Amino acid sequence: MTEVNRDQLLAKLRLELGSNAVLSGHELPARNRTDWSFLPNAEPLAVVRPASTEEVATTLKLCHEAGIPVTPQGGLTGLCGGARPLDGGIALSLERLHGIEALDPVGMTITVRSGTPLETVQKAADDAGLFFSLDLGARGSCAIGGNLSTNAGGNRVIRYGMARDLVLGLEAVTMDGTVITMMNRMIKNNAGYDLKQLFLGSEGTLGVITRTVLRLHPKPGCVQAALCVVAGYEQVLALLESARRSLGPLLSAFEVMWADYWRLYADRVPGARPPVSLGSGSHVVLIEMQGLDEVIDGGRFSVWLEDMFEKGTVVDGAVSRSLADLQAFWTTRDAAAEFANPDVAGPHISFDVGLPVGRMDEFASRSSVALSETLGCRSVYYGHVGDGNLHVVAWVKGAVTQPLPAVSDVVYRIVRELDGTVSAEHGIGTLKKPYLGYSRSPVEIDLMRRLKSCMDPKGLLNPGKVFD
Amino acid sequence: MTEVNRDQLLAKLRLELGSNAVLSGHELPARNRTDWSFLPNAEPLAVVRPASTEEVATTLKLCHEAGIPVTPQGGLTGLCGGARPLDGGIALSLERLHGIEALDPVGMTITVRSGTPLETVQKAADDAGLFFSLDLGARGSCAIGGNLSTNAGGNRVIRYGMARDLVLGLEAVTMDGTVITMMNRMIKNNAGYDLKQLFLGSEGTLGVITRTVLRLHPKPGCVQAALCVVAGYEQVLALLESARRSLGPLLSAFEVMWADYWRLYADRVPGARPPVSLGSGSHVVLIEMQGLDEVIDGGRFSVWLEDMFEKGTVVDGAVSRSLADLQAFWTTRDAAAEFANPDVAGPHISFDVGLPVGRMDEFASRSSVALSETLGCRSVYYGHVGDGNLHVVAWVKGAVTQPLPAVSDVVYRIVRELDGTVSAEHGIGTLKKPYLGYSRSPVEIDLMRRLKSCMDPKGLLNPGKVFD
Repeated sequence: MTEVNRDQLLAKLRLELGSNAVLSGHELPARNRTDWSFLPNAEPLAVVRPASTEEVATTLKLCHEAGIPVTPQGGLTGLCGGARPLDGGIALSLERLHGIEALDPVGMTITVRSGTPLETVQKAADDAGLFFSLDLGARGSCAIGGNLSTNAGGNRVIRYGMARDLVLGLEAVTMDGTVITMMNRMIKNNAGYDLKQLFLGSEGTLGVITRTVLRLHPKPGCVQAALCVVAGYEQVLALLESARRSLGPLLSAFEVMWADYWRLYADRVPGARPPVSLGSGSHVVLIEMQGLDEVIDGGRFSVWLEDMFEKGTVVDGAVSRSLADLQAFWTTRDAAAEFANPDVAGPHISFDVGLPVGRMDEFASRSSVALSETLGCRSVYYGHVGDGNLHVVAWVKGAVTQPLPAVSDVVYRIVRELDGTVSAEHGIGTLKKPYLGYSRSPVEIDLMRRLKSCMDPKGLLNPGKVFD
Repeated sequence: MTEVNRDQLLAKLRLELGSNAVLSGHELPARNRTDWSFLPNAEPLAVVRPASTEEVATTLKLCHEAGIPVTPQGGLTGLCGGARPLDGGIALSLERLHGIEALDPVGMTITVRSGTPLETVQKAADDAGLFFSLDLGARGSCAIGGNLSTNAGGNRVIRYGMARDLVLGLEAVTMDGTVITMMNRMIKNNAGYDLKQLFLGSEGTLGVITRTVLRLHPKPGCVQAALCVVAGYEQVLALLESARRSLGPLLSAFEVMWADYWRLYADRVPGARPPVSLGSGSHVVLIEMQGLDEVIDGGRFSVWLEDMFEKGTVVDGAVSRSLADLQAFWTTRDAAAEFANPDVAGPHISFDVGLPVGRMDEFASRSSVALSETLGCRSVYYGHVGDGNLHVVAWVKGAVTQPLPAVSDVVYRIVRELDGTVSAEHGIGTLKKPYLGYSRSPVEIDLMRRLKSCMDPKGLLNPGKVFD
């Protein structure tokens, strides 16, 4: 495309959307040049900030006609490069398309524009005496549209499911500017294909999400947690099995920290105050229950925990007596965010692999040994074990640049051998593209390509993401 | 296609699959000529019964080459004609592709071939001390592949979701014979597009489901139910809101029977023994709780119900004291299956519409009056109100043929006006095709057509279903 055509496109966009919606040259905000993947800054032609579905459609239509690629952007908190724009392309920021449109307390739904931060949705539900269950560390920055287009997971999947499971209705715009409005508000709707699924988890490559109807839940009556030290992975599995049976759907988190993780946290994170001591234990498990009633379910939780002690499944532990305890317990799990501190691990590589629950410990052992022996690389393991999702933090101490490809090769090779997935919750973006074939077959990837061609024949919507 | 080509296709199929897998002429079983939609029998060329995924692929490939349409068939219990074959086409029965392949008690998954009856899956889970939550009246006859391809709903959606929500992995074959194996066993997997969604709820028009990995849950520790008489729809909503708060995720069913339904059941169904009396009440509500512990949760249930009485939300009611009570309560709801008895309603037309919960009573009133005034048609209303799904049974007493199009026009016109859906759980098939546009926009239907062309360019897989 020539310089003149580019200028014409920007002029048309400014005419249709207004000058303040089209930022280029020295006005182009630095933050829109990449996302939280640490990939280098891109040089997009412009950042376009539509304030309505119609403006999104106009932008896509004009770019489609001009043959200019478009990268949708939400809160830019993605870790895999999915929202990093192309050099010379358009970054389509949804930040001005924000706000709550409606909240239905009877149908327990909330209707939201896609640029709305997750925390705003959580707060609106809370103000109405209800609960929006999706939750993750970047809640204040990430946008709901990004959560949906990456099918975000987070802390309470074991009870409420992933982002996909919370979506009743959706509106999306395809690259040719067609607005597909599917703002269903009902739990059950089998009238024709469930088209919204196309746009959930496809990382903005098939359409741009503009609005959504989300499912709300009743607010929990009480929350209790325990930190349990166990003496082997078999005990982790026994504890999970018992928690599922005894707490049933009240179980809202089952997070496991392997011994190396715990030591790194307890010994190195500044200000760490471990509520339990690992001793000769192998894992620390954070169990959370969202109950209905403090007396009934609080009692149930304590009795169950005592039984786990008596049976020897748990060798040491602490149970929350206050909100402060609850926060202190979660701090041990959230401490992973502090590992970038040079006094802890420093620059490192993170993974969000998925594995059959029964094989997670085998994975952690094999990965730890292989990384250490082949690359002199340290690694620690923790994650949402109840959901089959394990996080790995790996680093070569003192390396000028962390050896991302070599570490990825080792980790993903073992994932493949154990029938796991290279991404449980963060998505593929650009960083994991070389490894998509470790978890998906050529037939599957071919079908993904056919869908992409069907929905975006010119290949202009978020190109180069998920697969080439 | 000429007679000779047809004979060649059958000969090839017999060669590849064996003679007993290809039934034509006088061997063609009567049951495969239609489904439970009461549509007239079709005259298919043959019924083909593959016993493996490979045989399904071979069948589709040969039919694709020959240009012969194929209609997949599971248990043939669908109510909308989705499994009725085409005259001169192939009925692809999955009945021989059955059986449990694996059950993982740690990961809580079961791997099943698509021709397996739902009840067999339920029983296998139960035998392993676990619970498969999908349940519907035709459990002994329907096949799991049909449940998935129609995204079946049923009795416990309020707690566990629909069929779609229970599927972790899937294998499907497209019309050209390509086998797409996506047998994921993990709750979280964001590695690329979630392709299995294409085959769930698309009524066998995009691919034939051959195998699946399903999610299991812990077996409930106790089950309790109550039948509650209320004096207005506002009280139904108040009861639902309170049940959601006080029972939370333990609430496993919230079924409502409108007064006319209850009277038809209580006064006309032979052997009816109503456990409560309607009196001047407006609705009877069946509430079921799946608890964890008889003492703790049974007590919780009783205390909550007493509170509902004291507040006046419930004016009369009964609570289950035994399994026999539980069954007796469900009998009042399952009595709808007896309405075809000439002493009750006789031949009738059934609907499975979906509506925002707050507007269901408005719908029932308007529909009842409109049907009566314009067509002299009686109608009764009941359904899964907690899920936004209402069933309608409508009939013109003594009519030689029930006026399906006229009744449908009236019912679906009101559904459209109230932003509802023409199918909450049964699907579109052929019967509801004229009304798909009442719930989905031309843009949505156009996208469905594009997907269909992308997956099945020759239009040979279950043609004429969902849309033309």
